Amino acid sequence: KRNRPMRETARTPRVREIMNPAVVTITENELVKTAAKKLLKGETNHLPVIDREGRLVGIITTYDVSKSVLRDGDALTVSEIMTKKVVTISADEAVDLAAQRLEQNNISALPVVDSSRHVIGILNAVDLGKLIQRRWQP
Amino acid sequence: KRNRPMRETARTPRVREIMNPAVVTITENELVKTAAKKLLKGETNHLPVIDREGRLVGIITTYDVSKSVLRDGDALTVSEIMTKKVVTISADEAVDLAAQRLEQNNISALPVVDSSRHVIGILNAVDLGKLIQRRWQP
Ligand SMILES: C[S@@+](CC[C@H](N)C(=O)[O-])C[C@H]1O[C@@H](n2cnc3c(N)ncnc32)[C@H](O)[C@@H]1O
Repeated sequence: KRNRPMRETARTPRVREIMNPAVVTITENELVKTAAKKLLKGETNHLPVIDREGRLVGIITTYDVSKSVLRDGDALTVSEIMTKKVVTISADEAVDLAAQRLEQNNISALPVVDSSRHVIGILNAVDLGKLIQRRWQP
Repeated sequence: KRNRPMRETARTPRVREIMNPAVVTITENELVKTAAKKLLKGETNHLPVIDREGRLVGIITTYDVSKSVLRDGDALTVSEIMTKKVVTISADEAVDLAAQRLEQNNISALPVVDSSRHVIGILNAVDLGKLIQRRWQP
């Protein structure tokens, strides 16, 4: 198990310890339908969008795909509906900063990026729940 | 502010203290398109489905609406794509039980119901982040 138990450390846990390193991604020119398939196959709500060099250029979520239902969605591509200004976090940041970013931006996941904007993981609000459980357990 | 500061209480915070009491809901016979509109207008990913008496009978999320993109979705109604077995929580439960349910079921929100299954709030994984922030703040 990659999560160290809380009592071993007095310092704030880092993003790296609770992020999911297995991220499904997509590229800009793919169809929204392909995004929908990937979201459902990966059982996730968030798909970071990357360019050819693997760098983060956007994010597309089930929320955005739902929005496309209200448009004539069949020919839409990812770049037309993705969010371009992505809120991210780095793996060495404290989890409380992640929690703050999620809440302040009203979003439920943060792509974890390295210094060259490669996506190395994703941090989900549900993952923060793990820390809550440790906090109040006997 | 409805959240009491952590230090005032030694016991585990309750669902009631961090849930969102303003829940947008939908009924079974409405169209998936209407659900999509409500989801986007409410800036939420979760729409509890209620019957005429206001009792919880299902849940529909942006994840389900995204799935309908892959079908011939225009005439679909909420009852055809909603999840019927809803994982819920009661307002007096401890937040750590809520965190556990979210994680174990790989979901990001729980409708909060009273003893007659009326929906009185919704608890989002992002709301749990509030507790994380309090935990590690100086
Ligand atoms: C404002 S949220 C509202 C829905 C809900 N609160 C949620 O957690 O997804 C939905 C929008 O946020 C965007 N979004 C999700 N994660 C993001 C992130 N890390 N950075 C920027 N935008 C993001 C999505 O592309 C979508 O358009």
